[in-house]
Amino acid sequence: MTLSFALDAASVFVFALTGALAASRAQLDIVGFLFFAALTAVGGGTVRDLLLDRNPVFWINQPAILFIAAAAAVLVFFSAHLVESRARWLAWLDAAALSIAVPAGLAVALATGQSGFVAPIVGVLTGTFGGLLRDVVANEVPMVLRQGELYMTAAFLGALAGWYVSGYLATGPALIVAGLVTFFLRAGSLAFGWGLPVYRSRPPR
Amino acid sequence: MTLSFALDAASVFVFALTGALAASRAQLDIVGFLFFAALTAVGGGTVRDLLLDRNPVFWINQPAILFIAAAAAVLVFFSAHLVESRARWLAWLDAAALSIAVPAGLAVALATGQSGFVAPIVGVLTGTFGGLLRDVVANEVPMVLRQGELYMTAAFLGALAGWYVSGYLATGPALIVAGLVTFFLRAGSLAFGWGLPVYRSRPPR
Amino acid sequence: MTLSFALDAASVFVFALTGALAASRAQLDIVGFLFFAALTAVGGGTVRDLLLDRNPVFWINQPAILFIAAAAAVLVFFSAHLVESRARWLAWLDAAALSIAVPAGLAVALATGQSGFVAPIVGVLTGTFGGLLRDVVANEVPMVLRQGELYMTAAFLGALAGWYVSGYLATGPALIVAGLVTFFLRAGSLAFGWGLPVYRSRPPR
Repeated sequence: MTLSFALDAASVFVFALTGALAASRAQLDIVGFLFFAALTAVGGGTVRDLLLDRNPVFWINQPAILFIAAAAAVLVFFSAHLVESRARWLAWLDAAALSIAVPAGLAVALATGQSGFVAPIVGVLTGTFGGLLRDVVANEVPMVLRQGELYMTAAFLGALAGWYVSGYLATGPALIVAGLVTFFLRAGSLAFGWGLPVYRSRPPR
Repeated sequence: MTLSFALDAASVFVFALTGALAASRAQLDIVGFLFFAALTAVGGGTVRDLLLDRNPVFWINQPAILFIAAAAAVLVFFSAHLVESRARWLAWLDAAALSIAVPAGLAVALATGQSGFVAPIVGVLTGTFGGLLRDVVANEVPMVLRQGELYMTAAFLGALAGWYVSGYLATGPALIVAGLVTFFLRAGSLAFGWGLPVYRSRPPR
Repeated sequence: MTLSFALDAASVFVFALTGALAASRAQLDIVGFLFFAALTAVGGGTVRDLLLDRNPVFWINQPAILFIAAAAAVLVFFSAHLVESRARWLAWLDAAALSIAVPAGLAVALATGQSGFVAPIVGVLTGTFGGLLRDVVANEVPMVLRQGELYMTAAFLGALAGWYVSGYLATGPALIVAGLVTFFLRAGSLAFGWGLPVYRSRPPR
């Protein structure tokens, strides 16, 4: 369980940075930074733990997790003005967090012996729900709605790749594969505009 | 439990169609279709299972549910352009899904022996939360906010009717009553503009 | 557990009034009033109970809770037009509800022996998530996003104060401290514009 805790802690820190950046765009006070940092940081893992009936949920089990999120919030509160484009930093940090949180979710799903297709789905949920909550509450366009970008696709294929590899190798390398595939696809989309064909609406709506 | 699984599976398919139609309106790629189809399809039943502490939740217990949602997403991705008005199809399919999901929730609530007034409430939650999640995440106006339409009302009176009948008849006929009443009211609202009087705002807001 | 039930019941009634006021602003019918009243009233406590794995959740355990919310909805449906500014009433009633719900959450967290920092966090979640759900579903700006107001801050400092006092005094006085501190700060913000310094965006976004 130590590996999954380390992954949870790392994804909490990076997702908390993105939550605090969203708070800076909304011009909130320090408690607003703490709230968005924590919501984003623990949202995905909390949904995972509720669905898998893990008791208590990870941040109640290890409250130190909350201090990690708080540290990220304070860091951003005093340094976000140094950043040239907060929207761009937010997108790239979110990509990094996604690439840690997908394997973090997959690790728990594999450790609790989820059958068949459920493990990668849990990985995708863990990776994406914190950012989704952040965007919905902060009135930003959810990343999943950005047309022509690989977001869910990156998380989904990363989780699938890690799950597939876990049938042949140990869990550690499988999680690394999941993280690398997720980051490769998401970074490629941000840097080079990679995307899948989107549905084109015809005149009727 | 087979009856409640069949109802869950049917409501999953029809709600997944509505989720995929929402994805088509947002011009997403195929993974976006899969995400919205799955979110809409399993959202209500997942909330129900978390509230009633059913472990594991229905789609983790029966992952085939996810393939049903995926099939609906693919179907819509390749056929939505054939449809004349996607908004209208979405509303009618949502009405059908609502009329299946309300009895699906009621069936589980009755089977787990929920006391008094709780059973119809669980039916309403199961019927409406998937569509609510779909609309909130997709930035569409939630159906519950559409003025003068019967939506929550249809689900609520359908669940109440089924719950009342379940005190006199077997569960099967009671669920049919719940579905028919829900569909009758919702369809009447869509087709003929049935509605309850709404609260009229005076100048002060 | 009687004290925490009384606090839950009181916060349910006042939060239900705010939910019904939000429904009146959206010009919904009576069932829309019931839905928003119930969503707001039980949202925070439900999230608390799911996180702490209390089974069944409080309103399934005590369905009378739902009648309290329904009574508030009916009351507002027939009297909201008498109110001069519904937005202002909504803000003040929300302040009162917050000041009851934060100790309601803290009471359960203390009674279930949550370690260290977790108890005040549970108090904040219980106090704020019902209103957050109300605002997200009703397309209102979430209270947490209102710049320069003390909202999360009031809940957070109130919960912290109550938690600190609970180490020295009985639970009852500690809950009173939590409620008074929360209300004092939130009311001061509404009446006198109290606030913490907010993050100022520089030209880059």
